Amino acid sequence: MTAAATGAATVRPAAVTDRGALEAVIRSDATFRDDEVAVALELVDGGLAGSSDYLLRVAELDGAVVGYLCYGPTPMTARTFDLYWIVVAAAARGRGVAGTLVRAMEAELRDGGGGNVRIETSETDGYGAARRLYEKLGYPLAGTFPDFYGPGDALLVYYRTI
Amino acid sequence: MTAAATGAATVRPAAVTDRGALEAVIRSDATFRDDEVAVALELVDGGLAGSSDYLLRVAELDGAVVGYLCYGPTPMTARTFDLYWIVVAAAARGRGVAGTLVRAMEAELRDGGGGNVRIETSETDGYGAARRLYEKLGYPLAGTFPDFYGPGDALLVYYRTI
Repeated sequence: MTAAATGAATVRPAAVTDRGALEAVIRSDATFRDDEVAVALELVDGGLAGSSDYLLRVAELDGAVVGYLCYGPTPMTARTFDLYWIVVAAAARGRGVAGTLVRAMEAELRDGGGGNVRIETSETDGYGAARRLYEKLGYPLAGTFPDFYGPGDALLVYYRTI
Repeated sequence: MTAAATGAATVRPAAVTDRGALEAVIRSDATFRDDEVAVALELVDGGLAGSSDYLLRVAELDGAVVGYLCYGPTPMTARTFDLYWIVVAAAARGRGVAGTLVRAMEAELRDGGGGNVRIETSETDGYGAARRLYEKLGYPLAGTFPDFYGPGDALLVYYRTI
């Protein structure tokens, strides 16, 4: 990754050989607490093991893995999906990688006949960029749950039909 | 259970010996599809095995198990709890059993220093009694997610700080 990099991100399914790069992407993000890193890696390992509950899509820029998205079918629903995690390496931000990942997921859902996407996030400052991204991509805020994660840390839920 | 029964329900933690009675309670409820029965039983078995994620409380009327509630700490939160299931045997309805179960859960949360309770349910007719119960017990509707479970079947989320 250099300042001269100008290509757009490409998205593909994750492979087992991406494990190290995905962990590095997660650990580059200072927003995540240790227990959150552990949960993120648990889903990554589930996805890499071929679980149909956790679908992993990685973004590459100039041949390097710089981010990923993990989504999957919401249990007990017909065509609703949770976007569980989306992470972009700190060094690759500002290049539209996250938006490219979300659009790739939406294209897959459309190919499968459409569906709904639910995204849960936090109201704290560390998630401001994520909230702005979801709003920019057209995800309305469908619910607010005060103090959900902890005092002063609400759960915000975005929801959109694709 | 007879028409002459008049006592109020009592609530206690579930014991392994309740397994058969709990399954009978679940199967008495025609609202649940087979996949929902399977999920309910999975949580019951988790709770009976001593999981701290699924806390089971059973209601008794006149010495018989007539309902149960399953709740547990919401992952990655400080003091938020999901009320996963509340089921009352078809033959024991109209005697305040569900409300007694919810109040018992709330009393436990207060004893532990308080917290938030999240309840997810459906907008379909089969869940009308559940929705009325939550509203009567003071749980505000915090989010609505159209077509979440399937076409015309929204997810409704109630949320309250205890």
